[in-house]
Amino acid sequence: MQYQAPENDLRFLLFDVLGVDKLHELEKYADATPDLISAVIDEAGKLAAEVIQPTNQVGDREGCQYDPQTRSVTTPDAFKSAYKTFVEGGWTALDAPLEFGGQGLPHTLKFVVDEMVCSTNLSLGMYPGLTHGAISALYAHGSEELKQTYLEKLISGQWTGTMCLTEPHCGTDLGLIRTRAKPNDDGSYAIEGTKIWITGGEHDLVDNIVHLVLAKLPGAPDTTKGISLFVVPKFLPDSGERNPAFCGGLEHKMGIKGSATCVMNFEGAKGWLVGEANDGMRAMFTMMNEARLMVGMQGLGLAEMAYQESLGFARERLQSRSLSGPKNPEGPADPIIVHPDVRRMLMRQKVLNEGMRALALFTGHQLDLSVAHPDEDSREAADDLVQILTPVVKAFLTDEGFNNANTGLQVLGGSGFTTDWPLEQLVRDGRIARIYEGTNGIQAMDLVGRKLALKGGRLVRTLFGTLAGYLKDNPEAPHRDQLKEAIRTLEEATGWLAQNAPSDPEQAGAAATPYLRLMALTVIGYLWSRMAAEARTQLDNQAEGNNPALLEGKLVSARFYFEKLLPEVHWLLADIRTGKDSMMAFEDDHWFA
Amino acid sequence: MQYQAPENDLRFLLFDVLGVDKLHELEKYADATPDLISAVIDEAGKLAAEVIQPTNQVGDREGCQYDPQTRSVTTPDAFKSAYKTFVEGGWTALDAPLEFGGQGLPHTLKFVVDEMVCSTNLSLGMYPGLTHGAISALYAHGSEELKQTYLEKLISGQWTGTMCLTEPHCGTDLGLIRTRAKPNDDGSYAIEGTKIWITGGEHDLVDNIVHLVLAKLPGAPDTTKGISLFVVPKFLPDSGERNPAFCGGLEHKMGIKGSATCVMNFEGAKGWLVGEANDGMRAMFTMMNEARLMVGMQGLGLAEMAYQESLGFARERLQSRSLSGPKNPEGPADPIIVHPDVRRMLMRQKVLNEGMRALALFTGHQLDLSVAHPDEDSREAADDLVQILTPVVKAFLTDEGFNNANTGLQVLGGSGFTTDWPLEQLVRDGRIARIYEGTNGIQAMDLVGRKLALKGGRLVRTLFGTLAGYLKDNPEAPHRDQLKEAIRTLEEATGWLAQNAPSDPEQAGAAATPYLRLMALTVIGYLWSRMAAEARTQLDNQAEGNNPALLEGKLVSARFYFEKLLPEVHWLLADIRTGKDSMMAFEDDHWFA
Repeated sequence: MQYQAPENDLRFLLFDVLGVDKLHELEKYADATPDLISAVIDEAGKLAAEVIQPTNQVGDREGCQYDPQTRSVTTPDAFKSAYKTFVEGGWTALDAPLEFGGQGLPHTLKFVVDEMVCSTNLSLGMYPGLTHGAISALYAHGSEELKQTYLEKLISGQWTGTMCLTEPHCGTDLGLIRTRAKPNDDGSYAIEGTKIWITGGEHDLVDNIVHLVLAKLPGAPDTTKGISLFVVPKFLPDSGERNPAFCGGLEHKMGIKGSATCVMNFEGAKGWLVGEANDGMRAMFTMMNEARLMVGMQGLGLAEMAYQESLGFARERLQSRSLSGPKNPEGPADPIIVHPDVRRMLMRQKVLNEGMRALALFTGHQLDLSVAHPDEDSREAADDLVQILTPVVKAFLTDEGFNNANTGLQVLGGSGFTTDWPLEQLVRDGRIARIYEGTNGIQAMDLVGRKLALKGGRLVRTLFGTLAGYLKDNPEAPHRDQLKEAIRTLEEATGWLAQNAPSDPEQAGAAATPYLRLMALTVIGYLWSRMAAEARTQLDNQAEGNNPALLEGKLVSARFYFEKLLPEVHWLLADIRTGKDSMMAFEDDHWFA
Repeated sequence: MQYQAPENDLRFLLFDVLGVDKLHELEKYADATPDLISAVIDEAGKLAAEVIQPTNQVGDREGCQYDPQTRSVTTPDAFKSAYKTFVEGGWTALDAPLEFGGQGLPHTLKFVVDEMVCSTNLSLGMYPGLTHGAISALYAHGSEELKQTYLEKLISGQWTGTMCLTEPHCGTDLGLIRTRAKPNDDGSYAIEGTKIWITGGEHDLVDNIVHLVLAKLPGAPDTTKGISLFVVPKFLPDSGERNPAFCGGLEHKMGIKGSATCVMNFEGAKGWLVGEANDGMRAMFTMMNEARLMVGMQGLGLAEMAYQESLGFARERLQSRSLSGPKNPEGPADPIIVHPDVRRMLMRQKVLNEGMRALALFTGHQLDLSVAHPDEDSREAADDLVQILTPVVKAFLTDEGFNNANTGLQVLGGSGFTTDWPLEQLVRDGRIARIYEGTNGIQAMDLVGRKLALKGGRLVRTLFGTLAGYLKDNPEAPHRDQLKEAIRTLEEATGWLAQNAPSDPEQAGAAATPYLRLMALTVIGYLWSRMAAEARTQLDNQAEGNNPALLEGKLVSARFYFEKLLPEVHWLLADIRTGKDSMMAFEDDHWFA
């Protein structure tokens, strides 16, 4: 089944609900007119369906191959020309800075394109995806010389980039890294160490690969405060000499088999410091924060593709009669979409996907406002929302993206379990998104352990202000009572944390995962209310060009969300309020009794 | 990591909580003394760890091979000797009828062994697993001649059996099947048709394969009331002649790659009617009901293995410091089991696994009472519980088994996504269990659409009687208030169905999935209260031979269940009460707007 980009939903969200079409009123985004945004949606959708999707299954079957003789990696055959088309279309440059050949468009549009690419081939999307993080880190923290050397070619997609963080003995706990950087005489450094799970560490899509590597300088503190970031190219840009940054092998994985996941051995490879010595974690987080948002889009992208496949199947597959009388009396049975339990699965996918898309694009829009709004307070408020919602987008969209991919598979029954259908690949590919760029448990810890406390708690106050402002301004907001109640549970949970976590940080750790989920469901509730309000207004106005089916669908979907999904918040609050005791009480012998 | 059968938990459950050790007081199970039960647990655990587990990963890698020339299937190499050892140990005969060479032991013990086999190799376990269903169908519905011909060799494991139900155009809706049976002159039938997804339809572990095939006799009604069951051997038992029941190919699947999932072409194959003409569905349900319980054990078995792997990993992997101060001050970091969010994942696995085991073995015990209790009312009450809980065991244990396998994978982080660890295989293998033998949606429909109404609603009254009896007899029951509240939500949901479903069956369809889950959580709550009560009593008594670590662990685990997991019932009730409207309102154009 050919992928169909959710163009109507995107236009409704971007133009009618979020106001992304007004970004062009800001100087920085003057180019981002509604027409241009619309063109980006259309073209990206076409590219995804026509160029990228055909590479997905063959990429999974073929996988990446490692040649130990040459220490080189071959990507699936179909990836080469698809990547070339992607690059030639300028897609790697979409929101990159103008001064290095980027198009300087809003980040929200990058989110839109990311979703489509990940719907149609997550593995392929990761090569430019990681490159984007490298671009941002170099742009924000690199010297002018480094920027001049690397940015243009990374932005054009002629080269790709990597993030080299993890080592065999440490992933989450980067303070433990052992990779060392010794100063050379010429101002560069010799990098020694082994990194693992390096996406795109070695491959054959481009001429050069630019590694951003966390390493320790001689005498640096043995914590994350002793970590520096280095840029280490595969080939030295001036001489073209091969730098001894070699791939030692590929991981064998459950999914994303077209993505080269490399062990990288830095054998005295030449590198250059990015930013200040011992300040590498800050640059790393520049990459990491945008990678987290991108990974959220991966979860959504896979879930959208799964939804489309299962919807198509449910309308074709004839099995049993409707409980309210035959709907396909001429056929041997009714299509399974008539059965309530199948509807439950389809609605769950549709409503959560659209809610997750709203959450992600709301966050993307705030990201754009945080850099482009003329008013400092507005920029700061937008940044507050981006910071607090980044872990929420990453964790919730990948957890529910995976769940929805599984729900899609379930709609297909036995067919879904076979490799004749794409569902099982979507599930396998989607599993990693809950893990990489910080496991979802780490996202939850980032939210409760860091983001809640940041700037004296201002981030969460900004969020509550946004929610309260909406209720205040919209006394007739759809599903207002249920939304208000969800906000109350989030406030209560936040209050519980404020009271209990300072004296006992383990209480924050115990509450983290349900708290993140509670926030996600509440903010998505706010966005579903906004979508329903907009749909109601448009239906009332009967304006020309309306899409009544879409608008009526939004009203039903909102109702499904508030009736069937949002009430989970009460369960989550009960979980949080009962605290850590029942999980921390186990002693070692209890586990093995 | 070597599998460790949950022997202590099993003894606690079977002997101290459920009273399975008293089955030997009933004439039918006189052999099932506590010593014998204990020996079965020990020996099965040893077999699983030493013989079966080593075949699991190699079986996944090697898979089954189909040769189109000979239309034969080769199973993974390691399966042959493991199957031989399994058969020689008499494990295929455990609960089979004595008169055909079975050991006639309680079915509960079969459940125990099934869990262990599925923990260590689900694919391998399916060959004898499906055979068991064929044995039961032939024993319950076959003529004396058929029984004499087939049962002994199926029970000994010398032959295996299959269930041939699904066809390309129908799985759930068996009324649509097209396979035909034409009477031959000698009282046999010529079977023509194609069946798909036939587990063990063709393989090389045994000399002969006995297919139980649903087909239609000439002139039979075009509904499930026109289906008959036939036994169709691969080789005719009298002549040894090859019967034209050929494998046309294998499915390519996400998991259970060592299990031969066959397309079966019956090309005029000779078959014999099992039971009455047009009464095949009844015999099919004899197979199906026990297959459903077995599939539940598959979910649990995979979840248990995942738990053991993730627990082992969490105690070894050093990453970051405990939030309450270093726990491994000499090491570079603390084991991740100290972190509350990792504990949450481990506790969730442990507490749900033990609760699911309690639910399954409670149901197994009732199954034994339903056939062996001297008092007719007691037999009927036990049968009520088995019937109503069968879909609950199947669906809940496979849904949560899959979720727990995923939780185990998550504990391992990136390692869990690689094929270096067994977690990703457990997830892939476990995915099918939510689908086959009736998707979990079908289980939920069976519960609300059939089981609730059966015998005038007596099944659910028996269940409520059991729950109410426990509360009445145990005014000091652990977590009594929470349990009482859960039972109240289940009663309310049941009342809502009784009020709304008769006039609108789609309301039953809409409520089915959350209702099944609500029942599962409530009954497991009852069992956790019983386990905690027993643990408290034993701790108070300080009897010799006590395992205080296990007993204290049970108290903590029960608390976790009641605090963190059971409160989901309120969400489920809210879902049920809001009815079908928000899922049935979509028209065709809404889906594609």
